[in-house]
Amino acid sequence: MIAVDWGTSSLRGARLDEAGRVLEEKSAPLGILNVPNGDFAGVFAVQFSDWMRPAGSVCLISGMAGSRQGWVEAPYVACPAGPDELRRRLHWIEPGRIALVPGLSDEQGDVPDVMRGEEVQIFGAMRLAGLSEGLFVLPGTHSKWATVRDGRVIGFRTFMTGEFYGLLSQHSILARTLEADAPLDEAVFLRGAAHAGNGEGPLHNAFGVRTLALFGRLSPPESASYLSGLLIGEELRLQELPSDREVIAIGTPALTARYSLALRQRNVVVRTFGAEATWAGLRALQA
Amino acid sequence: MIAVDWGTSSLRGARLDEAGRVLEEKSAPLGILNVPNGDFAGVFAVQFSDWMRPAGSVCLISGMAGSRQGWVEAPYVACPAGPDELRRRLHWIEPGRIALVPGLSDEQGDVPDVMRGEEVQIFGAMRLAGLSEGLFVLPGTHSKWATVRDGRVIGFRTFMTGEFYGLLSQHSILARTLEADAPLDEAVFLRGAAHAGNGEGPLHNAFGVRTLALFGRLSPPESASYLSGLLIGEELRLQELPSDREVIAIGTPALTARYSLALRQRNVVVRTFGAEATWAGLRALQA
Repeated sequence: MIAVDWGTSSLRGARLDEAGRVLEEKSAPLGILNVPNGDFAGVFAVQFSDWMRPAGSVCLISGMAGSRQGWVEAPYVACPAGPDELRRRLHWIEPGRIALVPGLSDEQGDVPDVMRGEEVQIFGAMRLAGLSEGLFVLPGTHSKWATVRDGRVIGFRTFMTGEFYGLLSQHSILARTLEADAPLDEAVFLRGAAHAGNGEGPLHNAFGVRTLALFGRLSPPESASYLSGLLIGEELRLQELPSDREVIAIGTPALTARYSLALRQRNVVVRTFGAEATWAGLRALQA
Repeated sequence: MIAVDWGTSSLRGARLDEAGRVLEEKSAPLGILNVPNGDFAGVFAVQFSDWMRPAGSVCLISGMAGSRQGWVEAPYVACPAGPDELRRRLHWIEPGRIALVPGLSDEQGDVPDVMRGEEVQIFGAMRLAGLSEGLFVLPGTHSKWATVRDGRVIGFRTFMTGEFYGLLSQHSILARTLEADAPLDEAVFLRGAAHAGNGEGPLHNAFGVRTLALFGRLSPPESASYLSGLLIGEELRLQELPSDREVIAIGTPALTARYSLALRQRNVVVRTFGAEATWAGLRALQA
């Protein structure tokens, strides 16, 4: 089986054996926004035709390739939804050979929410962790928090935490006294995360990054860690965190490390997964 | 008396008679960031030397001209502070002739907050309205909410609402489906303001602007009004709004109109003031 995660900025694939073990991986900076002339079939052939040669090869593709801006639109599946619902709604490009995995949608108070790709990571982490319920966080430009019961995502919400960090640290007045790419200062990060607990929200608390710098209480590298803590702390403040069980964090090590720090500050146990969750999730959809 | 409001992007002045009536006004795009070679004395002379010619002329200058990046730093006066405290701490550039008005600082949970210029507008509006207490909002790039008792500002908080609107509408993913300079659609604005009452915060609610557009439920011009409503609604959600008395809004007509709409939605009575509050406030500091 060939598992492909085709996102906005990159294309990653893995060749799996019968048991789901990764035999080979590859990645290219050919995200859906970088596909020449929208020739998704051509890019796919160049990248994966050798892997697809053996008879009976099947490829499932998750991520933004199934969006309106992607190869073909695979309409969102409404929550609650689990692997069974997604499997039934796979969008076959070549029947039995190549399919796009649909994303999930959820509706809260007349406002829809969407994810594409994260649902596969959630189902993969469930399989790897042997879980059929729990609270999942997928940190990123647009972080997702999903609640799983009986093996299905019953609801989720998006938080633009990573994007807000980029906007504030690079384009706002805070940029004047902030070193955006400074290494993480854990103590200052946790100070910011704790401060978000005041419930005053980012419109107010972000201005504190400016005033603390003006008053000489935060250096430019510290300001970056403090702002990151403020925003991730705000995201956590808005969750109903389980006091009795763990949260599953799925993402890059740098990001899941920050979320783990802030979650542990609130006495929540964290278990983390990386890229392996994607491959396990795509495998779960085939099996 | 000459009253001057020297801000970040513009320089405005008024010549007042003995009774405080405005005889003449002028303005120039010579905010503190646009003063050639930092020659504040030179710019001041060119703009106001004719007005300052009569013997006994006094000029008070409020705004960012008194900041570290301005003419001379006039250190912040800590809350609680009223016109008496500011008058005692005027920073005289030419004794008895030209002075900078200090800004105010406040401290909440080890994080300082600051304003420069808005304190003068508050004292001016108090004088014009005949009030010695109340809740004041000064909408803008960095909105201020100040509580006044016995004629003094006892505390205030800043909200980066205008700056967040600019960042999200111009630099974020929302910009793709949002017409930032569209005229206000009041119904859609109020829908956004009401939605902010869900308490989910802008990290989550801002993503709704994207999904509502993706699902065809907000047009690009509507998205601008909805986002504006979401952010102003969030700002209002974080205030303890008086159910029994009015809020005083001071600012440009376009902005105070938006805040008035959102406040009336919450059954709060609003009274608005514009530039006249600045002149009355500077006059109150002299008298």
